[in-house]
Amino acid sequence: MRQFSKPIKRESNQMVFGIRAVIEAIDSGKEIESLFIQRGLTGELFKELKDVLRNRNISYQQVPIEKLDRITRKNHQGVIAVISPITYQKIEDVIPTIYEEGKVPLILILDGITDVRNFGAIARTAACAGVDALVVPTKGSAEINPDAIKTSAGALYKIAVCRHESLTQVIKFLQESGLQVVACTEKTGDTIYKPDFKSPTAIVMGAEDTGISDSIIRNADYLAKIPMFGDIASLNVSVSAGVIIYEAIRQRVNQ
Amino acid sequence: MRQFSKPIKRESNQMVFGIRAVIEAIDSGKEIESLFIQRGLTGELFKELKDVLRNRNISYQQVPIEKLDRITRKNHQGVIAVISPITYQKIEDVIPTIYEEGKVPLILILDGITDVRNFGAIARTAACAGVDALVVPTKGSAEINPDAIKTSAGALYKIAVCRHESLTQVIKFLQESGLQVVACTEKTGDTIYKPDFKSPTAIVMGAEDTGISDSIIRNADYLAKIPMFGDIASLNVSVSAGVIIYEAIRQRVNQ
Repeated sequence: MRQFSKPIKRESNQMVFGIRAVIEAIDSGKEIESLFIQRGLTGELFKELKDVLRNRNISYQQVPIEKLDRITRKNHQGVIAVISPITYQKIEDVIPTIYEEGKVPLILILDGITDVRNFGAIARTAACAGVDALVVPTKGSAEINPDAIKTSAGALYKIAVCRHESLTQVIKFLQESGLQVVACTEKTGDTIYKPDFKSPTAIVMGAEDTGISDSIIRNADYLAKIPMFGDIASLNVSVSAGVIIYEAIRQRVNQ
Repeated sequence: MRQFSKPIKRESNQMVFGIRAVIEAIDSGKEIESLFIQRGLTGELFKELKDVLRNRNISYQQVPIEKLDRITRKNHQGVIAVISPITYQKIEDVIPTIYEEGKVPLILILDGITDVRNFGAIARTAACAGVDALVVPTKGSAEINPDAIKTSAGALYKIAVCRHESLTQVIKFLQESGLQVVACTEKTGDTIYKPDFKSPTAIVMGAEDTGISDSIIRNADYLAKIPMFGDIASLNVSVSAGVIIYEAIRQRVNQ
């Protein structure tokens, strides 16, 4: 919970305090990046908030009041929301649009990339390479905060970012939409030079420590590893993402 | 000169204070990463130091005494040396060794990469990809300090690093040794997919802001750009390095 000890870093992220204010922010269409609710909170107004959260499928973290107090000295009434600097899009809307534009979709799914700088760097590469959209899970992904925006060199304002409760469901949807899913993992003998990236493709990158979740590995169409040599066989995830994305680009520009 | 205001960060880099101590460190074969000498310093002992520096071709920075005082409270006598955590190698020794091992050289020249984290990240990628050596200029390159080592995930201890006064001379030497020099730059219509990387190759990467120096661009055998699309056409240099290095690896593993 390092973000709580550095409230000053959050100043450029828009925050909303208090139950009524948060309900209004949600009702007015603002995207909630993260939502902190005091553990054990009760009352009529809070019930109303919980209904809104349930209807809109917005997740939140329950935290001790001390943490909320550290974020702000204002009267937060036990509820603090961080507004996202970007507007998330729905993958169900993005894919048809790409096809309608006559393009071959290239999607990047980030499964548990929690480091803000890696996340920003990957977004920057994706935008440079012309990737159509990023997909991240609602929970367990880097917060899109000013640091992420800065590391992305503004790319997070340009590229479509989709957020979904379940990446496994996203993968199923993408496969039904004609995309092959290529998981970038060391758990295979096949290299990234094997898949045919000229087809509609979603590439999955996993966390540096734990890799891609098992359910995604099982559901992927291809597993592909970046060949490595020598004693140090661990690329930084933002470099790995660049290498596999550009293998797709190479195949597409050279076809 | 940000490093002066954060002396605490330097604690894990070995430092040597005082003229006699620095002369002895050099005589005993220690590699000097950087050397700070008080502006206007005179005296017999300092003359002796200057002779040693001239003979060994070691460069130094002249700084006001206040900067030295900020680095240490010890009696520095106007001279502070930072000992390099790695041992630099000579490119003239490295190339014959690669050939003798029956390998096709792949060298990475870093022209003015001053950001320590980018430098470390590039070293990590180079080590993972089996690049034979990094070449950096004596002046105007990131200091190899504990931050660089850390970002490299230890790769800087594994890969050969060569330091030279003139990268143009290095390039001439490499060309005479049978290597082609591929400069990664946007100033060309040719992509990185055009050169034949199965030949002995040195890849040159330039600084993110200024790019590769003109004299190197003029002397390179090939200019090659990474194709980019969309509004944000600027990859991070450590990602760019990964993309072009792995294009070389792809050609070599798929031959």
